[in-house]
Amino acid sequence: MSEASGPVPAVRFTPEERDAVYKAIFNRRDVRDQFLPQPIEEAVLLRLLEAAHHAPSVGFMQPWNFIIIRSDETKAAVHAAFTRANEEAKALFPDERQALYASLKLEGIRKAPINLCITCDRTRGGEVVLGRTHNRQMDLYSTVCAVQNLWLAARAEGIGVGWVSIYSDADMRRILAIPDHVEIIAYLCIGHVDELYSGPELEKRGWRERLPLGDLIFEESWQG
Amino acid sequence: MSEASGPVPAVRFTPEERDAVYKAIFNRRDVRDQFLPQPIEEAVLLRLLEAAHHAPSVGFMQPWNFIIIRSDETKAAVHAAFTRANEEAKALFPDERQALYASLKLEGIRKAPINLCITCDRTRGGEVVLGRTHNRQMDLYSTVCAVQNLWLAARAEGIGVGWVSIYSDADMRRILAIPDHVEIIAYLCIGHVDELYSGPELEKRGWRERLPLGDLIFEESWQG
Repeated sequence: MSEASGPVPAVRFTPEERDAVYKAIFNRRDVRDQFLPQPIEEAVLLRLLEAAHHAPSVGFMQPWNFIIIRSDETKAAVHAAFTRANEEAKALFPDERQALYASLKLEGIRKAPINLCITCDRTRGGEVVLGRTHNRQMDLYSTVCAVQNLWLAARAEGIGVGWVSIYSDADMRRILAIPDHVEIIAYLCIGHVDELYSGPELEKRGWRERLPLGDLIFEESWQG
Repeated sequence: MSEASGPVPAVRFTPEERDAVYKAIFNRRDVRDQFLPQPIEEAVLLRLLEAAHHAPSVGFMQPWNFIIIRSDETKAAVHAAFTRANEEAKALFPDERQALYASLKLEGIRKAPINLCITCDRTRGGEVVLGRTHNRQMDLYSTVCAVQNLWLAARAEGIGVGWVSIYSDADMRRILAIPDHVEIIAYLCIGHVDELYSGPELEKRGWRERLPLGDLIFEESWQG
């Protein structure tokens, strides 16, 4: 290793910069219904994708791809897949929750100007990947880190992101022509927003409460 | 739904705040050897855990727990598990890569003042979880979002994070007494840093190059 390629002084953050990072983290929302119709500028979309591309990845595998969906036809097909799955989903909840479940908007597929499918190519970098030898799911997790990078960058850009998870994998593969060696990680709806819930929508709508952080912290080992 | 619980004007970011979020994203590193011995203040550690706790989670499930490891004994046991697995891992690479592989430091378990295991309790919130009905892995992905939140907040705090993935799941479960219904998502090494690589260490050390972003973007469907 040459001297030139070694560590260098770490980039420092001012208190204001640090606070901005927390501001993005605490004000990020899973957006379903607040998307505005205005298009996303290509330069902004590229910044979001650069943010995703700078996620950590196991063995520097960078296993992600980004499928940008703009056409009404594709969105309609995805929305139909969502609707089928969501009918099945609703029936799984106890009777007393079905009315509330049905009242929740759980996707913004047609309302958001951009939909984005983020995938993980399990074969990228060959069979043996540094860091994935003993925990094979690490490449999936790397791709999720890319989703979260994009989500936080979007918040700072005034853009909302909603993660749709109610669809059958087979339907989404068919619609987007995704090959077998590629895993679908996230289907995101993306668009400008000027209003958001002040906390998680499922909390605000009475579906479930935030857990106290202290209850989730253990010392040295699991304490159950 | 009462008026009071509806959307409110979205928090806005100044250009400087937006740039700070990108600064964290682009300067985040997977740290292995740059940890300083100084302890992490409890208030700072709590801020990092609050950041993790504000990740998105499917059905607002908040499936994560945080096991804070401080003792030399636990770290030594985890390090032994890493060493066993890493010997096995090294043997899997072609001869011409083994010398480089062996030269890479792939963990900072004993050097980092804090180790943190982040887990996913698959049973939290009951059997049927909103948004997880059709894609059961969504709770695992929520927990990865918590990891990435913590990682970016840490960067802004001047704290480095390294994700160790080379261990057998059975070893880690035994050492940390993790029950069967809980999945181990990440084992992190955490400590202050004043030097970092200027890019991903595996890139700087010649293991693998960054892929051009343009090659990873598709329009409307998979283009293989």
